[in-house]
Amino acid sequence: MWGGRFAEGPAAVMREINASIPFDKRLWRQDIAGSKAHVAMLGVQGIVGHADSVTIAQGLDRVAAEYEANGVTDDLTLEDIHMATESRLAELIGPAAGRLHTARSRNDQVATDFRLWVRDSIDAVDVGLRALQQALVARAAEHAESVMPGFTHLQAAQPVTLGHHLMAYYEMVRRDRSRFADARARMNECPLGAAALAGTGFPIDRQATAKALGFDRPTANSLDSVSDRDFALDYLMSAAQASLHLSRLAEEIVLWASQPFGFVSLPDQWSTGSSIMPQKRNPDAAELVRGHSGRIVGCLTSLMITMKGLPLAYSKDMQDDKPPVFEAHDLLALSIAAMSGMIETLTFRTDRMRAAAEAGFSTATDLADRLVRVAGVPFREAHHITGAVVKLAEVKGCALSDLSLAELQAIDPRIDEGVQAALSVDASVAARASEGGTAPERVRQTIARAKENLGS
Amino acid sequence: MWGGRFAEGPAAVMREINASIPFDKRLWRQDIAGSKAHVAMLGVQGIVGHADSVTIAQGLDRVAAEYEANGVTDDLTLEDIHMATESRLAELIGPAAGRLHTARSRNDQVATDFRLWVRDSIDAVDVGLRALQQALVARAAEHAESVMPGFTHLQAAQPVTLGHHLMAYYEMVRRDRSRFADARARMNECPLGAAALAGTGFPIDRQATAKALGFDRPTANSLDSVSDRDFALDYLMSAAQASLHLSRLAEEIVLWASQPFGFVSLPDQWSTGSSIMPQKRNPDAAELVRGHSGRIVGCLTSLMITMKGLPLAYSKDMQDDKPPVFEAHDLLALSIAAMSGMIETLTFRTDRMRAAAEAGFSTATDLADRLVRVAGVPFREAHHITGAVVKLAEVKGCALSDLSLAELQAIDPRIDEGVQAALSVDASVAARASEGGTAPERVRQTIARAKENLGS
Amino acid sequence: MWGGRFAEGPAAVMREINASIPFDKRLWRQDIAGSKAHVAMLGVQGIVGHADSVTIAQGLDRVAAEYEANGVTDDLTLEDIHMATESRLAELIGPAAGRLHTARSRNDQVATDFRLWVRDSIDAVDVGLRALQQALVARAAEHAESVMPGFTHLQAAQPVTLGHHLMAYYEMVRRDRSRFADARARMNECPLGAAALAGTGFPIDRQATAKALGFDRPTANSLDSVSDRDFALDYLMSAAQASLHLSRLAEEIVLWASQPFGFVSLPDQWSTGSSIMPQKRNPDAAELVRGHSGRIVGCLTSLMITMKGLPLAYSKDMQDDKPPVFEAHDLLALSIAAMSGMIETLTFRTDRMRAAAEAGFSTATDLADRLVRVAGVPFREAHHITGAVVKLAEVKGCALSDLSLAELQAIDPRIDEGVQAALSVDASVAARASEGGTAPERVRQTIARAKENLGS
Amino acid sequence: MWGGRFAEGPAAVMREINASIPFDKRLWRQDIAGSKAHVAMLGVQGIVGHADSVTIAQGLDRVAAEYEANGVTDDLTLEDIHMATESRLAELIGPAAGRLHTARSRNDQVATDFRLWVRDSIDAVDVGLRALQQALVARAAEHAESVMPGFTHLQAAQPVTLGHHLMAYYEMVRRDRSRFADARARMNECPLGAAALAGTGFPIDRQATAKALGFDRPTANSLDSVSDRDFALDYLMSAAQASLHLSRLAEEIVLWASQPFGFVSLPDQWSTGSSIMPQKRNPDAAELVRGHSGRIVGCLTSLMITMKGLPLAYSKDMQDDKPPVFEAHDLLALSIAAMSGMIETLTFRTDRMRAAAEAGFSTATDLADRLVRVAGVPFREAHHITGAVVKLAEVKGCALSDLSLAELQAIDPRIDEGVQAALSVDASVAARASEGGTAPERVRQTIARAKENLGS
Repeated sequence: MWGGRFAEGPAAVMREINASIPFDKRLWRQDIAGSKAHVAMLGVQGIVGHADSVTIAQGLDRVAAEYEANGVTDDLTLEDIHMATESRLAELIGPAAGRLHTARSRNDQVATDFRLWVRDSIDAVDVGLRALQQALVARAAEHAESVMPGFTHLQAAQPVTLGHHLMAYYEMVRRDRSRFADARARMNECPLGAAALAGTGFPIDRQATAKALGFDRPTANSLDSVSDRDFALDYLMSAAQASLHLSRLAEEIVLWASQPFGFVSLPDQWSTGSSIMPQKRNPDAAELVRGHSGRIVGCLTSLMITMKGLPLAYSKDMQDDKPPVFEAHDLLALSIAAMSGMIETLTFRTDRMRAAAEAGFSTATDLADRLVRVAGVPFREAHHITGAVVKLAEVKGCALSDLSLAELQAIDPRIDEGVQAALSVDASVAARASEGGTAPERVRQTIARAKENLGS
Repeated sequence: MWGGRFAEGPAAVMREINASIPFDKRLWRQDIAGSKAHVAMLGVQGIVGHADSVTIAQGLDRVAAEYEANGVTDDLTLEDIHMATESRLAELIGPAAGRLHTARSRNDQVATDFRLWVRDSIDAVDVGLRALQQALVARAAEHAESVMPGFTHLQAAQPVTLGHHLMAYYEMVRRDRSRFADARARMNECPLGAAALAGTGFPIDRQATAKALGFDRPTANSLDSVSDRDFALDYLMSAAQASLHLSRLAEEIVLWASQPFGFVSLPDQWSTGSSIMPQKRNPDAAELVRGHSGRIVGCLTSLMITMKGLPLAYSKDMQDDKPPVFEAHDLLALSIAAMSGMIETLTFRTDRMRAAAEAGFSTATDLADRLVRVAGVPFREAHHITGAVVKLAEVKGCALSDLSLAELQAIDPRIDEGVQAALSVDASVAARASEGGTAPERVRQTIARAKENLGS
Repeated sequence: MWGGRFAEGPAAVMREINASIPFDKRLWRQDIAGSKAHVAMLGVQGIVGHADSVTIAQGLDRVAAEYEANGVTDDLTLEDIHMATESRLAELIGPAAGRLHTARSRNDQVATDFRLWVRDSIDAVDVGLRALQQALVARAAEHAESVMPGFTHLQAAQPVTLGHHLMAYYEMVRRDRSRFADARARMNECPLGAAALAGTGFPIDRQATAKALGFDRPTANSLDSVSDRDFALDYLMSAAQASLHLSRLAEEIVLWASQPFGFVSLPDQWSTGSSIMPQKRNPDAAELVRGHSGRIVGCLTSLMITMKGLPLAYSKDMQDDKPPVFEAHDLLALSIAAMSGMIETLTFRTDRMRAAAEAGFSTATDLADRLVRVAGVPFREAHHITGAVVKLAEVKGCALSDLSLAELQAIDPRIDEGVQAALSVDASVAARASEGGTAPERVRQTIARAKENLGS
Repeated sequence: MWGGRFAEGPAAVMREINASIPFDKRLWRQDIAGSKAHVAMLGVQGIVGHADSVTIAQGLDRVAAEYEANGVTDDLTLEDIHMATESRLAELIGPAAGRLHTARSRNDQVATDFRLWVRDSIDAVDVGLRALQQALVARAAEHAESVMPGFTHLQAAQPVTLGHHLMAYYEMVRRDRSRFADARARMNECPLGAAALAGTGFPIDRQATAKALGFDRPTANSLDSVSDRDFALDYLMSAAQASLHLSRLAEEIVLWASQPFGFVSLPDQWSTGSSIMPQKRNPDAAELVRGHSGRIVGCLTSLMITMKGLPLAYSKDMQDDKPPVFEAHDLLALSIAAMSGMIETLTFRTDRMRAAAEAGFSTATDLADRLVRVAGVPFREAHHITGAVVKLAEVKGCALSDLSLAELQAIDPRIDEGVQAALSVDASVAARASEGGTAPERVRQTIARAKENLGS
């Protein structure tokens, strides 16, 4: 395929390191689509005769049908999916196949194929993320009033509602979807027609191929078109960010499923046992979602390193763009699906959550706030007084609300009798009704808005 | 500052690992701005008395003036910029200072400060990237017709124009600016009012503070508000991507400045010499831009790792968000400025570029294309014939255009007499007039469009 | 300093990006030591006259004394610590200073300085890691018999002793120290004398300078000597690995200090409070150790990226070697010290640990093992029977040891009456007396061996 | 396999995310070997009856023979290679198979299997690296006197010999082999017998299984044994470092094969052509070696991230340890083989190298050194004088050796008549005879020593 200039074929190791067919065969649908758009345009422009263009298009359909039925064979001698397809096309339709590659190169061809694949993947991920949002919102709606401890530093901080906690993840996924959408908009330009690197002298119509393939426009610079992998990096960056969010939720499921927390239990379908310890019920899927995040970040790192410092235009290093993107996509898609499955089916042990919220002096801030509001104490001073109250409760081994008014007023006489009611976790949660706060009424509002946005 | 509950102060090592003031003092302007917006709102809402709110605002101005004049001292006992400022405020205005922290926490405060800082940094980077685009466009306009070899695999591939090559970088920077703009739009929500993690019971007005600080709206979920660092990661991802583009241009400058290429020479202001080899003229700035890209990617990696698997809400690990962002920003800003400086001032040795384009059979594709166009040969066959022509020239040690028509027709009789004219580098470049191609007329069009977009 | 060939000085941005003095001044001790070894050798070899060599050495001592007293000034015009020192030397001793740089270059000079610094840092880290091992062993010795739940998947798995758990970290640190020792041995070759890249024509004695600086031998190849940064990468890899171990222990401290676990409490010196929640006692140091691990891995990533694909010999990108190494070292040293401080002073709440071990069916494996041992049941079958027992206890809401023999035998008649004694956590722990197992006698043995190794 | 406690099987997504058999089937040889060592020990210790132990061992041999013949099937319901093997064993030999898993767990089993695999891989890599060293030494021996330009900053710096340049890579590979050897020594401890995490109550003999599997000793702590993946990280760190070295050599091949350098040409077996440009001869293998380095670093990053912050003992995240190690190993092994193949077969165009060395004033340092040596000028002053000489040659557009003595002495009268001879590249190279320098005699010495070390 390299013309008549090579006397000897490649060494066996050379063939193995050079061939991309073992992984780029995954692009076959996009490769066929790109070739069909290209040959249709060549026909319309008269670069290839009408009859030939029809023959080639039909031949491509036959190749596609074969791939659909039998998959693509890993034939290392054919190097990549582009040559494999062209070679099979030639077997099927004869020399006319040799006209398909007019006015293009594998450099713009693979850039087009891979963009199409990434665009499809973004669309698939978006569907998955939306489903995850729906699962989160549904469970949040069940638990808009269920009290649990809010943690900072993994220390009980202030009571929150479980619904509010779940909606925090809704927000993260919202940003993830917006990031993927931005990536999609930025990448939706068609490199086909950039040819090897410089454009072509044939009178091609790049607007036509761009439109046929669903792109917004052709790319603006042919050198950039074949050396740009921003779209793959944008995908990986969005995937890495999404996976980091999933890893945080996964960490919480692992924590919450552990005996000391006991906040959730996972159903049989989302647990595994042990080969040796019969009592085990392990949150493997959550751990794997958390672990996969490391691998997805590794995929991003990999491609950034590969692209660094490459001179224009195409260099073969860029063949190492696909394995990390494919791997990241598979891991992310599986992680999203697993997370949705877990969120939909796990049981929240709200009694354990409430009990944990009630331990740990988590309403101490409410006492300080009350001193500010009712007695006009500056916050810093109120904070100090409350510290002394907590210390007393700690020494006595009781809850804040178990301290008598006398004991409280001995610490500071400005503490009033309304304080005990204010120290319950329900009162605490209800009080935090600022915009975006954890008060059930606020949480129900945001859930309603989210449902509207999701169209559900 | 932690209330009345700690009997003993921190260990020396604890103080050192815990204090962020050595680096977060860089946020002082944002911290003052955030506090002023907060206290103004507290005053309007009647949460703090009007007189106190005015006193606090004036006090904050005095602190800011001191910082402006003398910098911020690294006092580890004050832990961070927030406590440093509040402590100084208390010295200046007395106990009223203790009312400033009402209805907020350091968790929402630092999230606000850091967002403001990142937003300012995006704006600064955008100015720098725009200036780089202008430099690229200006030099491209000078060289819309200067022929150089276009490389793939660093092998001479097809002639291109230097203007076209420079405009490839214009495109990359265009995407970089769009990526930063997306990041800016996504992050422009105000976390102030999320308080520690759950919102607050005080009747605050989050719309007011958001507006005062130039945010589009308040964040939607308080837990998310204090545990989200997407904005920092979005910044780092955009910075990493931009630095990868810069690293490619830097690589080319290093290559082009080397004696075997000799495509550019750097002026004295952008070269360094050697402590031992008096003839040296090193492209240090380009090498450092390339190297800095590695560090910026390292900064991104760092923060992704830190954020992975953190349960909600705030964890102290998140204090490790600032050093990588600050470092990446400084490296990126310097890299952009250095690259603009080099692009503006380097000398392109267009004679050497043209000579290199004329060597290396870089117009072989033009011969193949002509066979397709003029003689109707299928491209694959034309490619094969041309391979034989190249082989002959290689054996004879001459250029393609030095082969006689007889010699060419001995290889294939369909080669016609127009071929020799078509094999010049100027003809080759002029021929590639497809949209986005390297033909000077096309390059001038894209330059004109770019100038329009840049408003210059 | 670049000889007489540059008409114009560097641009301001060029000066800023190029200068390394803001960070490499940290190498001043090593730079002085390297120069003293070099000039002493030049004197002995007669390359520099005896008097000059003495004058230079004394001058270097004066410069060192000034640095010690006043620090090194960031003078960007002097570019780096080497030129800063030589320039000050010239001020102090006049033109003889110009003989110091004979037969060397900044390329071999900085390679030598930086190796010396890294070697010192390895020695410092080793001292810190050994102290951490001592802290672990001391606490393990206190708790060789304290029972806690051993977790897998963060699910209670089998009871272990706290001493055994702490000794797992002893093992990790043992490997860390061995990794640093390997790095030290591999790097301990002296690049001085490689000059710019090719060696020198002066009759230098590289054995002498290597020996004077404590290296095992000179490096073998001058090109490699100035382009090699393996020693820095080996340091970073060892640091990254050590920090990952620390991050695991830090994670456990954070978990254990949380209210639901309640396994440890941190003393005042190793806790922080909250600016808003007076009851908080946060494990900030543990969180920061965990977070720092991300940054140290980022530093490693950074330098790997920077070094990738650099042609020989020295490239200026390599100036980006020092910031990540310095940063990683500072973070690691602080992390080790903080971890030692926490381990030495935290309180283990052994009652909570024991209670947690007794919950959660963690001795189920002991029942399965007993069926194998006493009744000859194949393990797989025993595992299945035990699963049924656990299910019964789960349904009844009781511990395994609360089930009556009749209930157990109803599940499988081969269960014997000795089983109940075997299901206590103490019996379970005592039984696991295989080599490396958690039985207190084994743990005491490994502690004794560790103390011997530590010489304590 | 999880005993009798799970009523429902896993969800489809759960099965897919959880199963490791698609990749860990690659461990089958190690799994069989580990099981055979384990059951032999169980038999000797009387934990399993002699007959059963023999039956199991024979059954394992039969399973191995089946795997050898037909490969291992991806049956997701069997989850991993351990269960697949045990399940097939049960089909072949019946209930006795259930005794194999006595006194072990999948946690220590997989730790053992994976260590064995990594150890084998280190051995395989060492063979490859040694072959690469032999190739480098053989080509270096051919070219101990071939002069080429030595570069710093990719600027011609001083002439060196090609042999010396190649031997720089010999040194890098020497360190790589030493790093792998260190990793091998550190990892060579056997985790088998740690069981799930706590050791076992069965009277196992860990010394026996360790010895049978070629380990130096059993691991010391059972918790550490099942949660440690240092051996995998040590492998990845060594692989990353080795790949960085390969990437530098690859970069040089790409540069040297480009037309402007023209220092090497690659044979047909190690080149590829273009689908569109018939003249192309691309160094794809070198580019892929360079690109693979990015992926290998990505694999290391991935596993570091995954391991960070995992509490003891085993967590399922650790299942993500194998894909990056397998990927890195395959990429590294292929890269080493490709690099050896290229080094062995590429043609060095020594005429082009010499011509490049003679251009570019690369002997300017020799002039400065001569002024020091012959005329006693301090080096700094000599450097300055030489700068002026270079400037003159630059202005005149001639080589240094083309300047007349009169012209030189007009710059500084101390320049003597011997200078012109000293300025030839051969004289320059011969002069740098310091230890480790580029003088041919030195290079031949180091080659001889290397051959001795390689036993060739």
